[in-house]
Amino acid sequence: MKADIIAVGDEILIGQITDTNSQFIAERLNLSGFEIRQITSVADDKKHIIKVLDEVSKYTDLILITGGLGPTEDDKTKQTLADYFKTRLVLNEEVLEDVKHFVKSKGFSLNERNIKQAEVPENCKVIRNKNGTAAGMWFEKNNTVFISVPAVPFEMKEMLETDILPMITKHFKTPHIVHKTVLTYGFPESTLAEKLSNWEQHLYSGINLAYLPSPERIRLRLSIIDDTKAKAENILNKEIQKLNKIIGDSVFGYGNLFLQDALIGILTNRNLTVSTAESCTGGNIAHLITSVPGSSACFKGGIVAYSNKIKTSLLKVSEKVLEKYGAVSKEVVEQMVKGQLELFGTDYGIAVSGIAGPTGGTSEKPVGTTWIAVGNKEKIIARKYTFGTRRLLNIRFASARALDNLRRFILGYEIK
Amino acid sequence: MKADIIAVGDEILIGQITDTNSQFIAERLNLSGFEIRQITSVADDKKHIIKVLDEVSKYTDLILITGGLGPTEDDKTKQTLADYFKTRLVLNEEVLEDVKHFVKSKGFSLNERNIKQAEVPENCKVIRNKNGTAAGMWFEKNNTVFISVPAVPFEMKEMLETDILPMITKHFKTPHIVHKTVLTYGFPESTLAEKLSNWEQHLYSGINLAYLPSPERIRLRLSIIDDTKAKAENILNKEIQKLNKIIGDSVFGYGNLFLQDALIGILTNRNLTVSTAESCTGGNIAHLITSVPGSSACFKGGIVAYSNKIKTSLLKVSEKVLEKYGAVSKEVVEQMVKGQLELFGTDYGIAVSGIAGPTGGTSEKPVGTTWIAVGNKEKIIARKYTFGTRRLLNIRFASARALDNLRRFILGYEIK
Repeated sequence: MKADIIAVGDEILIGQITDTNSQFIAERLNLSGFEIRQITSVADDKKHIIKVLDEVSKYTDLILITGGLGPTEDDKTKQTLADYFKTRLVLNEEVLEDVKHFVKSKGFSLNERNIKQAEVPENCKVIRNKNGTAAGMWFEKNNTVFISVPAVPFEMKEMLETDILPMITKHFKTPHIVHKTVLTYGFPESTLAEKLSNWEQHLYSGINLAYLPSPERIRLRLSIIDDTKAKAENILNKEIQKLNKIIGDSVFGYGNLFLQDALIGILTNRNLTVSTAESCTGGNIAHLITSVPGSSACFKGGIVAYSNKIKTSLLKVSEKVLEKYGAVSKEVVEQMVKGQLELFGTDYGIAVSGIAGPTGGTSEKPVGTTWIAVGNKEKIIARKYTFGTRRLLNIRFASARALDNLRRFILGYEIK
Repeated sequence: MKADIIAVGDEILIGQITDTNSQFIAERLNLSGFEIRQITSVADDKKHIIKVLDEVSKYTDLILITGGLGPTEDDKTKQTLADYFKTRLVLNEEVLEDVKHFVKSKGFSLNERNIKQAEVPENCKVIRNKNGTAAGMWFEKNNTVFISVPAVPFEMKEMLETDILPMITKHFKTPHIVHKTVLTYGFPESTLAEKLSNWEQHLYSGINLAYLPSPERIRLRLSIIDDTKAKAENILNKEIQKLNKIIGDSVFGYGNLFLQDALIGILTNRNLTVSTAESCTGGNIAHLITSVPGSSACFKGGIVAYSNKIKTSLLKVSEKVLEKYGAVSKEVVEQMVKGQLELFGTDYGIAVSGIAGPTGGTSEKPVGTTWIAVGNKEKIIARKYTFGTRRLLNIRFASARALDNLRRFILGYEIK
């Protein structure tokens, strides 16, 4: 079964907002067994909307249209749909009740624009909206279903999950599509692809594989269509088992986690604590860790040691070592781990010192040079990396690498 | 001039990622004088990509295509474009140099997939990519320009701003559109709109005004089309002068700065220093400050005092005060400012303590309750805020508010 999404709204086309609705709808329809054929964003323009409806309805079974249902002049979707389905707008008593109820709950009195909101095309099936004044609409034409919903995200989401998805499930009979996402960190995409090329070539034939790279992780998404959900999951799980035999230590999770989620999970499960001492990452590692709900159980605190004075006074980095090796050195990050373990009384410490840029580089230590150390009282492992020339990216690269190094340290894996 | 955007990628169609690239491109093209006609997202599917190219090229002057340029099997855009423009892929020495340089900078050795990345359609103009292995491509056909860029956001953004927009400006002759963006912080959008309603009603008639709100700032974008750039700028500047008379203390800059950029600018100009002591923001304020190039001149360091022990041992918060008022209190954030001024020897300090959520709230101090203090040796000002219920948003709200409070403190403005 194929579905199309049409997002209507001038604000999308001028780049004023990111269209997050389409992602939400695509995900939900996909999980319901639809293949999303195309997402089309157009302005609040009657002619263009009709052109797109004509075009996409040739190829698809279901069209979900968001936006253009507000009470102002620039909203054109409802009248456009009435014209497209050759009908007229009529006052719907049920919708009027919803509108009255909504307006009253906000402490306003009903005005003409509100009443206009209760008019819907005569031949549509109404989908009620508890959180706003714009009703949803369901039309059918030549075996294609057209559904129109408002673009206010929380209104759309509730309508989709409460009413529309059950209506769709009832109307269409769809196959079982199952996706699994494997989260990896450690190898660049091309190296990963090489390592996995044999595995990839022998994948079960119905499986579709995608690489989704970012500075923080490379996601591998495996998808399959099968008669039953259990059978599809079984096939994917077998392939993921094989994958784990090849790059198991680089797999930090499944689904939609980040390295900080994985690390906090490991620490929490083992009842262990961590602290940070950051120079070039400037607090970003502490920020990533504390973004995780519940991180306070294992994260005790951190030092952003931007000046050398703080490195010596708080973290007890030796002035001699600083002078001899420089702030960006193996010796300094090792002492930064030792110092923080003492200061915070934590089980594990992370220390980073580098040249984030854009200035501060030398021929010996160019911008991007970064030392990362992780460890505990028994052992500290420091590694040198050369990232790029862009400050913000260097901070992101170094933060992810530091989190992964501690994950590998705790789990006993080789540190990359 | 009309432009279309085509976003290629299975991950968009299955709803695994939100397509933020199209918003960025739409905004930039719009600011360069293009009307974005349609944004179309399609899967990594050759037939469908070609169908969409055929269709949209009938109506538009410029097509910007993102995605599908990676080194793996699922990436189909490059071969598709070669077929569409009836040409073949050839190794491009310039791109190969870029790929070699990039791979080397990452500390890896060149593999076959990397070399494949250096192949481009024979008849395209190459757009170089400093941050990855996929080059951009420029084609022309029947007066329409087709540009293909990788979908990795930071690669695409740098290529667009550094090379592509200047190339487009040179190729197309677009009217003089002048934009000025006024950056404000302090009022919620509705209050700001009310304060500015009289100014807005009397704006010079050709000016288009847009409110662009986010947790970190509300941008007011004024746009005008005029015969000459100088005349257009003059008209906008006059209106901005009037605006400054109404909300001057809430205007922290122009263009695309954030509060941390404004604050670092003020501190650097006055040769002053700052430190941070963060509880609920968990290092995010230090991270924002150190994201600014050159911030090391005024930022000495920070403490992420997640546990109370760190508040008392490092920041000298009194145990009695902690016990009597709780960690989220006026007294504690005031002592956190005092303690850090001592510890770091800085001119100004920022301290934040709050309940980020999702748990930890009480009826007296619900999730979102946050105390922020800023000050120097002479004076400390603490304010209480009640943000929302979502952890990440609370961290963002509190961080921006803290940065703005110190900006206002230094400049002698009232703290909101």
